[in-house]
Amino acid sequence: MPEYVRNTWYVAAWEEEIEGEKWIARRLLDEPRLIFRKQDGMGYVMLSDRCPHRFAPLSLGKRQADDVVCRYHGLVFAPNGSCIRAPYGGTPPAHVNVKSIPIAARYGLLWFWPGDPALADISKIPDFAFLESQNVWKGRSLFAGNYELLSDNLMDLSHVDHLHGTTFQTEGAHARATFEVRDGDKDTIWSEWRINDARKLPVLEAMLQGVDKIDQLLQMRWSAPSCMALRILWMPQGGTPDQAVFSMINPHIVTPESTSTSHYFWTCEPNIESENLARAVFETEDRPMIEAVQGYMGDKDFWQMKPAILKQDLGAIRVRRRLIKLRHAEHPKQHESTG
Amino acid sequence: MPEYVRNTWYVAAWEEEIEGEKWIARRLLDEPRLIFRKQDGMGYVMLSDRCPHRFAPLSLGKRQADDVVCRYHGLVFAPNGSCIRAPYGGTPPAHVNVKSIPIAARYGLLWFWPGDPALADISKIPDFAFLESQNVWKGRSLFAGNYELLSDNLMDLSHVDHLHGTTFQTEGAHARATFEVRDGDKDTIWSEWRINDARKLPVLEAMLQGVDKIDQLLQMRWSAPSCMALRILWMPQGGTPDQAVFSMINPHIVTPESTSTSHYFWTCEPNIESENLARAVFETEDRPMIEAVQGYMGDKDFWQMKPAILKQDLGAIRVRRRLIKLRHAEHPKQHESTG
Amino acid sequence: MPEYVRNTWYVAAWEEEIEGEKWIARRLLDEPRLIFRKQDGMGYVMLSDRCPHRFAPLSLGKRQADDVVCRYHGLVFAPNGSCIRAPYGGTPPAHVNVKSIPIAARYGLLWFWPGDPALADISKIPDFAFLESQNVWKGRSLFAGNYELLSDNLMDLSHVDHLHGTTFQTEGAHARATFEVRDGDKDTIWSEWRINDARKLPVLEAMLQGVDKIDQLLQMRWSAPSCMALRILWMPQGGTPDQAVFSMINPHIVTPESTSTSHYFWTCEPNIESENLARAVFETEDRPMIEAVQGYMGDKDFWQMKPAILKQDLGAIRVRRRLIKLRHAEHPKQHESTG
Repeated sequence: MPEYVRNTWYVAAWEEEIEGEKWIARRLLDEPRLIFRKQDGMGYVMLSDRCPHRFAPLSLGKRQADDVVCRYHGLVFAPNGSCIRAPYGGTPPAHVNVKSIPIAARYGLLWFWPGDPALADISKIPDFAFLESQNVWKGRSLFAGNYELLSDNLMDLSHVDHLHGTTFQTEGAHARATFEVRDGDKDTIWSEWRINDARKLPVLEAMLQGVDKIDQLLQMRWSAPSCMALRILWMPQGGTPDQAVFSMINPHIVTPESTSTSHYFWTCEPNIESENLARAVFETEDRPMIEAVQGYMGDKDFWQMKPAILKQDLGAIRVRRRLIKLRHAEHPKQHESTG
Repeated sequence: MPEYVRNTWYVAAWEEEIEGEKWIARRLLDEPRLIFRKQDGMGYVMLSDRCPHRFAPLSLGKRQADDVVCRYHGLVFAPNGSCIRAPYGGTPPAHVNVKSIPIAARYGLLWFWPGDPALADISKIPDFAFLESQNVWKGRSLFAGNYELLSDNLMDLSHVDHLHGTTFQTEGAHARATFEVRDGDKDTIWSEWRINDARKLPVLEAMLQGVDKIDQLLQMRWSAPSCMALRILWMPQGGTPDQAVFSMINPHIVTPESTSTSHYFWTCEPNIESENLARAVFETEDRPMIEAVQGYMGDKDFWQMKPAILKQDLGAIRVRRRLIKLRHAEHPKQHESTG
Repeated sequence: MPEYVRNTWYVAAWEEEIEGEKWIARRLLDEPRLIFRKQDGMGYVMLSDRCPHRFAPLSLGKRQADDVVCRYHGLVFAPNGSCIRAPYGGTPPAHVNVKSIPIAARYGLLWFWPGDPALADISKIPDFAFLESQNVWKGRSLFAGNYELLSDNLMDLSHVDHLHGTTFQTEGAHARATFEVRDGDKDTIWSEWRINDARKLPVLEAMLQGVDKIDQLLQMRWSAPSCMALRILWMPQGGTPDQAVFSMINPHIVTPESTSTSHYFWTCEPNIESENLARAVFETEDRPMIEAVQGYMGDKDFWQMKPAILKQDLGAIRVRRRLIKLRHAEHPKQHESTG
């Protein structure tokens, strides 16, 4: 499998997944990581979850203020990764340290930069400011599929009619949509779907008194490497986005756990019905499909599988080519087929 | 592992496994396949169970008359494999299609031809006409073993004394058998075992009034690639097959699921005692042995394991050499050791 | 993974694991083995548990006096591995035989020599004579870790403070220990830890009336390839071993099941509390740590992982280098990094 893009921000967890002084151990980009909040509440720590001495998981150990004590031989690591104490023998050699990875809390999410720490620039975190004003429940699902299979899924919304057609009662409306794909700023790609004369959802009826026909606009924004946001707007037929009578926006953020498994971060309305619907869609409709496809792909590369390319694949393919370009910039010797 | 012989008929299923309009999804020769009966009842369809667009299992989708609708993006495939509709964008490009594999119902079995469809000749299906006049129950067992381990087992009936000795109360009779192996027509190999002065089974007592001593003749017929039939005859001592007072014949048909797992198709008398006996023999005597042997072989080739060859191996070895020859004819560059 | 050292004695089982005429089937150094006691009680047999004919596990078969009958085709093997009978066809060719491995009972343990039988010299069995006078319970635990991870663990007793600190209430005493590593005779390496002013265990109080301060000495003896014994002595502060008021000695013997799994043979006092304590230490403290480390190592070599070497690693590293040397002597072409 090709190398991951490394000089970019990925999401490690929802901030609220970190309970008090407890840490979480999570596999991210094929590496075990330990994540916890500093005691003063002013920041987070992400360390490699593998002691450099004898490879013990640090997560089996314990915290000592903001330091981490390995359970195997008691080595103590500071938040910057330096080994500051070795019980046997006193001061450890200076080169004994564990990797510390830049991590930042923003929008209720914990972002980490797996590449060169000197390049980690907070201003490059994709914009998910909308999360700050939302009262939502936050979810994470693990998919046994490569993260690019999830952007394939999300960038081609024609799949909603078929995979989620019953759940969302789309009645084939997406097949009638016009759509366009365009590059945005800051390494974003937009896939925009407009459904003319869309169905009036019951929840919208009240707001749409006097409006005869409505259009539905679905704006999917992809930010490298795999952070998506979907805004859905309803407006009078032929209207522009600023004429929307109702809209919603949700995150669809994907982080590789490994080359064949992914963390999927999502939100829903703050009630159990909404969570159940979200889980039905993500975990019983999308997930079995993604996992079956991964099962067929195995270790093979997507292009090596010779997919039939259809009109609707424009957004998904553009994302795949952008990722190849980003990977190539970091790993110039890595050869990848581009279809 | 060597390539399979492809220009030949394999069994995919018992015809009665297909219930009404339901399809079955089955892995055959390492490929996922979808199998169903046409609405007019006049034939069957076998398609690759993998959409060429984004590799979704078609079996997660639904039937539309004799067409198959993919659940991921709604592509519709005709029985010949052509994609006849793409909901988004209308007509799909002509090259979008799924592999359709020749399949034919004969003798209550569904036969498929995984090689060049132009060569698929119904007359080459091995003769299992005896099944048409039998009132039997039909079974299928999955063995975690390469299909050639099953022909090894079946072509050397000396194993019956030891692996099934208690079940069949053979009392070592097979060790006394004379046997001969010969080639038959239409790519068949016969392994024939004659037990002189055989045990009179209780079921035969009535028919054998006045007969002092009997012989038992076991005729195993192998047809390429792995379709066997075993006829057992009882006759007065020294008699010829046409003097048999009683006989039975059963299929032992094996199809690779993968290089290390096999479908085993068998029959038994139409009652629960008979099914229990068959399952005891196949699933609790043969299967653990085959699976243990496969476990020891792992990815290694049979000849690479340097088996000790004994007198009784003549039939099994001839089958193995025939398969190597058939494979070599199709894949001339594939090198295989032949012991 | 590198080859095992073969011309050496490994432990296969506790002698008492063999019940009467029953055999045990056990994987040792990646090979399936069958072990049983001879009928006259004068010795043991270890055979390859794989019939040379069709690779059936002999352990699925049965004993016939001291011979073994294969369940698949009835071949009979004598204790020396010769095939002495083939039911079909009578006498088997002389070259049909199964590997017989030198095995000897000593100190209540069954030792086997996986290398050249001509070199198997009973006098080279490491000295565990202390077991003969002990009334102990004998245990075996399976660890999903390479055997060298276990000698790493046992040769560096500084881990006791951290991994077993609560269980043994060491209160960090091991960090204060002085230790030295030295070569002994007969391919042994000693790692000796002396704790000045050690804690008086309750069990020792009575024996230590009138003694003010005591020292604790831990002598770990490693014998190639992976047979360890730990003697612990308590003596008046500054005293020599012969002044010990109390001591105990226990075996810690490790045999590879495979390159990533190990049999661990241990003893405890003959009561349930002692067994529970031993299992707590070995199976709920050491084992999860060893298995997590193995999980991180995967197929990688220890040196390739670039471990940080600390002062306390002297014993473990010396053992690793000795094993490399022993392996190199047997497999001169096998290249191994030595850190």
